[in-house]
Amino acid sequence: MNEVTVLPHWTLAQAINGLVRHGVPAISVWRERLHELGVAEAARRIAGSGLKVSGICFTGMISSPDVAEAAQAMDDTRRAIEEAATLKSQCLIFLAGAVDARDKDLKATRARVLERLAALIPDLRAAKVKLALEPLHPTACATRSVLSTVKLANDWCDALAAEDVFGVAIDVYTTWWDPEIESEIARAGKRICAFHVSDWLADTQDLRLDRGMMGDGVIDIPALRRAVEAAGYTGLIEVEIFSARNWWKRDADEVVQVVKQRFQSAV
Amino acid sequence: MNEVTVLPHWTLAQAINGLVRHGVPAISVWRERLHELGVAEAARRIAGSGLKVSGICFTGMISSPDVAEAAQAMDDTRRAIEEAATLKSQCLIFLAGAVDARDKDLKATRARVLERLAALIPDLRAAKVKLALEPLHPTACATRSVLSTVKLANDWCDALAAEDVFGVAIDVYTTWWDPEIESEIARAGKRICAFHVSDWLADTQDLRLDRGMMGDGVIDIPALRRAVEAAGYTGLIEVEIFSARNWWKRDADEVVQVVKQRFQSAV
Repeated sequence: MNEVTVLPHWTLAQAINGLVRHGVPAISVWRERLHELGVAEAARRIAGSGLKVSGICFTGMISSPDVAEAAQAMDDTRRAIEEAATLKSQCLIFLAGAVDARDKDLKATRARVLERLAALIPDLRAAKVKLALEPLHPTACATRSVLSTVKLANDWCDALAAEDVFGVAIDVYTTWWDPEIESEIARAGKRICAFHVSDWLADTQDLRLDRGMMGDGVIDIPALRRAVEAAGYTGLIEVEIFSARNWWKRDADEVVQVVKQRFQSAV
Repeated sequence: MNEVTVLPHWTLAQAINGLVRHGVPAISVWRERLHELGVAEAARRIAGSGLKVSGICFTGMISSPDVAEAAQAMDDTRRAIEEAATLKSQCLIFLAGAVDARDKDLKATRARVLERLAALIPDLRAAKVKLALEPLHPTACATRSVLSTVKLANDWCDALAAEDVFGVAIDVYTTWWDPEIESEIARAGKRICAFHVSDWLADTQDLRLDRGMMGDGVIDIPALRRAVEAAGYTGLIEVEIFSARNWWKRDADEVVQVVKQRFQSAV
């Protein structure tokens, strides 16, 4: 369970207890909440709880054309790598960052991100952390990520040639529309280090915070799960629902119960 | 100028007069407004005005898994083909239609649309109408179009093998994020039969109705124009801005004036 699914109601400490109480086997942690509790204390509590950590959300945003801004983002990414190592997370979720209105140059922006990713290889190897390149929906290209397709994530992994430290996160919500999704999942193969589920509602009303519960939308989630498993992925399946309109308004225990039911019936 | 840019304020008759008054050389017509005025009357007025018709918006939506629904959509598409012929439009804009929550099968949906497009070839040839396959933004996959990339439009054109009646419409707003946009525009070449401009605002608030005026967003419009022209396109450039938040609230004459300025400075 990604913590964001119950974010408005539970602190990280409450989420750890709540998920254990409901028999959920793993948690994905948001860094804001991690910093609230303290990284060492969070690591201690999670280890004590028996929960696995499917991911840390998120780091990156290293696309800026401004050198000082980029250096700051790289420093923060290096701190996140340390945090992921401390929490023994399956991976660290990486968002590329957006194209900047100051230059509008998507090609140059993507080239900058790739170059900066290469500079992180020694840090990732030293910390033994897998950085999960997560393609976001094309709607995020001007706000959070110029990495818009699984194909581009695969192209970047090819170019980086460091399979030990870079992986690909597949989120059904951000990739389901892609005509090449199945062939690119197959191409990603062992690179896949995270698989996130939620649903695309036919009447989606917000670009980011209106994700649906699995089964309530139009995504053929079981088909994408089969594709990811056929590619060799055997790790955790993470439920990540940003829902200002619906699920964030409900009681967290109810949300976890519905997630568990839908995980059986619609994933 | 696409009529939709000033849709809340002007009827089609007013739009024809208004665009002529401002020295705009061409109009793209919405079918709802065309039916209000009457197709023959609209054709007569447009011919008399000297305006060219850059497109008719829109037809298609032939993706349904329901046979009766699909037959109805095909009938309507055939009516639109007749309308485009009567108006001597540069092309007729085709939207594929959405994936259906009833089957959630994107691959089958896309195959159905392609098969139904093939069935329209005789109608298009008889009417001498160019059907412009327009990729929409991936946000529209569950509402208006499973044709999500220029690559898929090119693949469909390859499969249809009827270059005389199928073309590709390039809209910067729906395609700018695509890592393959430049190579697929080059591949489209002479297929390009429409080029639509507007801008993606960094703080976009609506999935469909929050387009920006050229220059106010993050799209490198001149670069895409150069790509389209390098591919051989010499036709009209159409300004299509759906803007419930801003431009639809302003006086139509003011909007046309700003469009003309920005067409010089930002396209």
